[in-house]
Amino acid sequence: MNRKNKINNLSVYGKHLIIDAYNIQREQLKNTKEIRKLFIELIKNLKMRPLSSPIVKKITSPSYSNWGLSGFVMLYESHISIHTWPENGYAAMDIYSCKDFDEQKVIKLLKTAWKRTKIKTRILMRN
Amino acid sequence: MNRKNKINNLSVYGKHLIIDAYNIQREQLKNTKEIRKLFIELIKNLKMRPLSSPIVKKITSPSYSNWGLSGFVMLYESHISIHTWPENGYAAMDIYSCKDFDEQKVIKLLKTAWKRTKIKTRILMRN
Repeated sequence: MNRKNKINNLSVYGKHLIIDAYNIQREQLKNTKEIRKLFIELIKNLKMRPLSSPIVKKITSPSYSNWGLSGFVMLYESHISIHTWPENGYAAMDIYSCKDFDEQKVIKLLKTAWKRTKIKTRILMRN
Repeated sequence: MNRKNKINNLSVYGKHLIIDAYNIQREQLKNTKEIRKLFIELIKNLKMRPLSSPIVKKITSPSYSNWGLSGFVMLYESHISIHTWPENGYAAMDIYSCKDFDEQKVIKLLKTAWKRTKIKTRILMRN
């Protein structure tokens, strides 16, 4: 929405949730449909408004047998991105929003989707 | 490229450069062509490989007269995003890459494009 909002009494350009998630089942991180569905659930849960459908692509390399997915969705509120490393059970997710949102909802949703995951989060205020 | 790489002797999933840039000319932050061009210059300069063309969209609100741009490009190395607040002369940019890159090159390029800008950067290692 590209305007300043009050979050925790601070006037900010955005709240940026940085998620590093470990111990995720390999097959889940290779499944484009599942990642797309996860994006849609997150958007619905956080009451955000997508500008278009999520894009999820397979990223391969001719010189390397492992591959992962990269996904992105532009939101009216800003964006969500993901990059997955199936071989390591790892995913890097970012949620950047100009309006406040409940990071606990995000963590809960991810823990439901990725049963045994361990999640590290960092929050950056963009101001 | 979704594989672990050595950056500063650390095995990481990515280097994430968080840029908050201030004092940018309003018109520059409203110009979709210019932002797209900036993305292309960054990609070329950092020797990254785009998966598709940068998408830059105007974000408006019926309840608010100010508007900004949001832009994104998916890279083989990960992604670059931007959100602009023309009224405040502010832009939030993220560069996430699974391979190392020179953040000084980024700052130099942005300072050339946005003459009087003041830039705050943070680097997060995703690991």
